[in-house]
Amino acid sequence: MKTLVVGANGKIGRILCRIAAERKMPVRALLRDPEQQAYFDSIGVETALGDLEGEFEASLEGCDRVVFTAGSGGKTGGDKTLLIDLYGAIRVIEACEAKGIEQIVMVSALNVDQPLAGPPAMRHYFVAKKLADERLRASSVAHTILRPGLLTDEPATRSVRVDAASGGSRKISRENVALCILASFDHPESRGQTIDLLDGDKPIETLFA
Amino acid sequence: MKTLVVGANGKIGRILCRIAAERKMPVRALLRDPEQQAYFDSIGVETALGDLEGEFEASLEGCDRVVFTAGSGGKTGGDKTLLIDLYGAIRVIEACEAKGIEQIVMVSALNVDQPLAGPPAMRHYFVAKKLADERLRASSVAHTILRPGLLTDEPATRSVRVDAASGGSRKISRENVALCILASFDHPESRGQTIDLLDGDKPIETLFA
Repeated sequence: MKTLVVGANGKIGRILCRIAAERKMPVRALLRDPEQQAYFDSIGVETALGDLEGEFEASLEGCDRVVFTAGSGGKTGGDKTLLIDLYGAIRVIEACEAKGIEQIVMVSALNVDQPLAGPPAMRHYFVAKKLADERLRASSVAHTILRPGLLTDEPATRSVRVDAASGGSRKISRENVALCILASFDHPESRGQTIDLLDGDKPIETLFA
Repeated sequence: MKTLVVGANGKIGRILCRIAAERKMPVRALLRDPEQQAYFDSIGVETALGDLEGEFEASLEGCDRVVFTAGSGGKTGGDKTLLIDLYGAIRVIEACEAKGIEQIVMVSALNVDQPLAGPPAMRHYFVAKKLADERLRASSVAHTILRPGLLTDEPATRSVRVDAASGGSRKISRENVALCILASFDHPESRGQTIDLLDGDKPIETLFA
């Protein structure tokens, strides 16, 4: 099973590709800019060039699984949130449907189902993620939706919790998120699930078991 | 049949409300700000206060039909395009479904089905309109989607054309659009249709006949 990582040059994407390479798992990093290739060459990960605002479909060739962890980030405006986080996701889902991809793992975010209850500056982002998740749930492709809380650069604790409604810390390390993505590959039970993710006490290898 | 006009204080909304009042058709203008009420009082149109980023559902009470002509406009950022043009539309559609509204007329825009083929500055707006239209097409509520070209403030010619692909002028007056909305009310054949709209030679009263 080869996995295309969409948003590979993002923080979660880079960690995910590194760990996958360490585990000798076949992954392909979708990159927008050839200058991003050096890192992936250095860790031994195959790359493909493509653009979520243009052509990217050829990068799916030979892949069985897709991880969507692309995001326009906080430095651009809401126009890019619409074009990348939402429409980019929809176009990737549609391309996966057309190509017969077996599984999509979507990196979403906590609390996106109630976007107008969020902080004003985050509401449009939550709308984008909510609608992308809804499109994925309506898809014919098997999918897992992971909704991490506030992302940190801490090293992985290798344990998480999914009961976000019960209070406590709102944080999770990006490395823990990457490990959860990889755990979803190993467990068919992950398909069809939407789960919140925070740092916690549950060993990641038991998350979908 | 009473009609709620969402986006009543916009240019098309104001013209639509004025003509409806002249024709003694029952309309209610949904407004965000009490200061917008004076115009509608002066033309004899009922108003309701509500906010597409907050509560607006009560304004549907007693209405049978909804026109959606709200838009965040070009002066705010893409975040508002997401929150108003897209998510506002989705929330209105969902509220119409919940309330058993009979018909929704959506003011969309020309060429939104190929958003990435549009001018860069318009692409995110086209995505928002495309996705709102798709949500409406998937709705249980009867609907008409009007896709006008470049809007002008010219007086209505009372004639339009729908063959946008055939070239020619890309313009249509807002007053012509308002007249097409009203024409859709009179013709059940308008339901389920998505049509482009430009100034042209076809009398508006025959548009859906």
